[in-house]
Amino acid sequence: MTDPRLERLLATVPGLRLKTDPADLEHYGRDWTRRWTPAPLAIALPGSVEEVRGIVHWANQAGVAIVPSGGRTGLSGGAVAAQGELVLSLERMNRVLDFNAVDRTLTVQAGTPLQVAQEAAASHGLAYPVDFASRGSATVGGSIATNAGGIRVVRYGNTREWVAGLTVVTGAGDVLELNRGLVKNSSGYDLRHLFVGSEGTLGVVVEATLRLSDPPPPTNVMLLALPSFEVLMQVFAAFRERLQLEAFEFFTDVALRHVLAHGAQAPFAETHPYYVVAEFATGDERAETAALAAFEYCLEHGLVLDGVISQSDAQAAQLWRLREGITEALARYKPYKNDISVRVSTMPAFLAETQALLAQQYPQFEVVWFGHIGDGNLHINVLKPDTMENDAFVAQCEQVTTLLAGALERHGGSISAEHGIGLVKKPYLSGTRSDAEIAIMKGIKRVLDPNGAMNPGKLFDA
Amino acid sequence: MTDPRLERLLATVPGLRLKTDPADLEHYGRDWTRRWTPAPLAIALPGSVEEVRGIVHWANQAGVAIVPSGGRTGLSGGAVAAQGELVLSLERMNRVLDFNAVDRTLTVQAGTPLQVAQEAAASHGLAYPVDFASRGSATVGGSIATNAGGIRVVRYGNTREWVAGLTVVTGAGDVLELNRGLVKNSSGYDLRHLFVGSEGTLGVVVEATLRLSDPPPPTNVMLLALPSFEVLMQVFAAFRERLQLEAFEFFTDVALRHVLAHGAQAPFAETHPYYVVAEFATGDERAETAALAAFEYCLEHGLVLDGVISQSDAQAAQLWRLREGITEALARYKPYKNDISVRVSTMPAFLAETQALLAQQYPQFEVVWFGHIGDGNLHINVLKPDTMENDAFVAQCEQVTTLLAGALERHGGSISAEHGIGLVKKPYLSGTRSDAEIAIMKGIKRVLDPNGAMNPGKLFDA
Repeated sequence: MTDPRLERLLATVPGLRLKTDPADLEHYGRDWTRRWTPAPLAIALPGSVEEVRGIVHWANQAGVAIVPSGGRTGLSGGAVAAQGELVLSLERMNRVLDFNAVDRTLTVQAGTPLQVAQEAAASHGLAYPVDFASRGSATVGGSIATNAGGIRVVRYGNTREWVAGLTVVTGAGDVLELNRGLVKNSSGYDLRHLFVGSEGTLGVVVEATLRLSDPPPPTNVMLLALPSFEVLMQVFAAFRERLQLEAFEFFTDVALRHVLAHGAQAPFAETHPYYVVAEFATGDERAETAALAAFEYCLEHGLVLDGVISQSDAQAAQLWRLREGITEALARYKPYKNDISVRVSTMPAFLAETQALLAQQYPQFEVVWFGHIGDGNLHINVLKPDTMENDAFVAQCEQVTTLLAGALERHGGSISAEHGIGLVKKPYLSGTRSDAEIAIMKGIKRVLDPNGAMNPGKLFDA
Repeated sequence: MTDPRLERLLATVPGLRLKTDPADLEHYGRDWTRRWTPAPLAIALPGSVEEVRGIVHWANQAGVAIVPSGGRTGLSGGAVAAQGELVLSLERMNRVLDFNAVDRTLTVQAGTPLQVAQEAAASHGLAYPVDFASRGSATVGGSIATNAGGIRVVRYGNTREWVAGLTVVTGAGDVLELNRGLVKNSSGYDLRHLFVGSEGTLGVVVEATLRLSDPPPPTNVMLLALPSFEVLMQVFAAFRERLQLEAFEFFTDVALRHVLAHGAQAPFAETHPYYVVAEFATGDERAETAALAAFEYCLEHGLVLDGVISQSDAQAAQLWRLREGITEALARYKPYKNDISVRVSTMPAFLAETQALLAQQYPQFEVVWFGHIGDGNLHINVLKPDTMENDAFVAQCEQVTTLLAGALERHGGSISAEHGIGLVKKPYLSGTRSDAEIAIMKGIKRVLDPNGAMNPGKLFDA
């Protein structure tokens, strides 16, 4: 603690909790990406909005950059501090502040883990329906910064849809209370939506008022085996028309093979090119009948090659494990991840084109596809061959991403569906957003963060 | 057509349709507000995005301001051209461009009337669920510019929720294709949401891709008589818990008196302080039973003083007329309208405080309250006494609005729920948005509209 800048920080924000141990610098300086060496100046752990504001004022004066930090479960390097930045961790600001039964809202500090918010909602008989696998570590603030999606988007939409109000500290040190929980508010530009998905580049989200939903209905789970992606889309259409879908996830035979190798139980005697895990609301006899009818329709029309409907919660969990276990099963191959989206209707053409391109140009790579059909969101994991060095692998994968970015541009897609741009996807942003859009984004950043104090180098180079 | 600026416009955009007849200038220069004398330079009626772009380039060079113009049904003066502006009417850009069954989207030119978009969706077995009374004249572009709400917000949300993609021409003349129909897209700031509700101050919305919903379920309508607003809120809670509400609208005895004087039929033998029109999904026996049970629960607990459930579509329409007929019944009093919102839970306290303030300070005015309970949206109509001159009335009403703005500030509300700020609410914006927020909005406008060509003087003075 001999750095004069930190002395000044403590003079500006008396009593601020700071960490400078090398182990802490390493722990707080990275997210779930592992491509950058953490090198933050220090870790600040403010306990109040006022302290956050003091830190931002100091950063502007001292010329130190701030990396806002939630659960650091991000996959795009948005929370990496590798350039001497101050990490501003929200972990001590993790309290549920308010529940309002009439408004059906929950107000939390930004460092509240997603799962804690979900449990708080459930304790009042309601639900916070944004959900994804890192729920125990990911924070509400971080999920807002990336407009996180997850497995329930087909039914509930993205994080954006559930933010009724935000308190933020801008890069200029202004505290803004945005929308304040109103349902209807046509009083000028909606800055709340500007902060959702801004990846910490405009300011720090310090509190959020979340909309809550009715508790989820009772559901059932189906696993389906399908002959092709085109047929998979037909099955999606048939199911969407007849059922209330809570999730509709697909994966390939390659993905299943890895999950089975990792210890899961084979669902069918034979293997098939594509699989779908569909979760659908039941709750009454009509819904049950509709689900069976949809299933039988698909079997009779040869759309589904094999299938199973869960008969118990345990079996439902077992079916889900085939989809949710993919990431863990692939981990040992240090997969290079892409998280892309196109319009739902464009998925078959995009998938066919890119699978052919990859097979032709990168036959040495095993590529695992899975994702969220209802959202047009495809996760593409390229597996590192055991014999290849990591640096060479990453370098080749970046060429794969360039190839993907080109296909996305042709098909009107996005290089990041739900992970954000961060550092990882920054080189490819211009395939998804036009030069004019990027120039406007940079202009907006200058308005809210005139000295470039907030998470510089993420999303774009200002 | 001797103005040299218009000659230059025609040289820049050959073949552009222009109108300069005094009758046209008057017709296109105003919206549904009647407080400003229209005085546009001319009316341009472009037929393509390229023509819109040409007009914007000309405006920047010629130093002429542009007022984007849809159906001009606005109530805040957002489309008024009283300062020699060029009105850019989208009325010729009124085609449905595309329907996509898989994406469930409809792409329309911005000048498409709301009702045409609704009918196009219905022709494909789907629905565009944003709906309000001026649907026949209001355009999709205009509804996006104000983030229009309406009577279905309690169920379907505001316009913002249904915009999957926007094509805009910015004030700098850039054509941006924002979000391009994607469900998931975390690739930087969501400029689409910046344009929704921007009231033409950042650019011109030229095309929109709208999300469509399942067709609305069969519904039934109830009219309820209630003893107080507090009880009304209890009834809302009881109904929301038990039924799928499609609308939950309230009005006062004063509103009903005017509607009855205008020719409607009295629903009950006695008069009561508050009334609710509730529309709820039926469709199956369980829903019917739940509706009856909710109604009986409220009767038994003395919450509802009287009530009727419609037995036919004709009766449902008759009940709705009591609510929807208010605006027309009041028209002869040249009412001064306020359209405000608070959080749903704050409505009783806000209403009690402002009703008391109004009765105390403006006893000479008859005030009619109605609105959307589920959205916290109250419409307040102050009626002009027959004996009062219009100018004096408006002057006094602006003091009423100042009083309302103060109450809204205390209760965390908004001076505009769904009409927008425009010219009418501009003096009161600072009660709803902080100085820092307004400064940021002005900064953002400068980024997208550097020469201040787009609808200057609306929303705020740049």
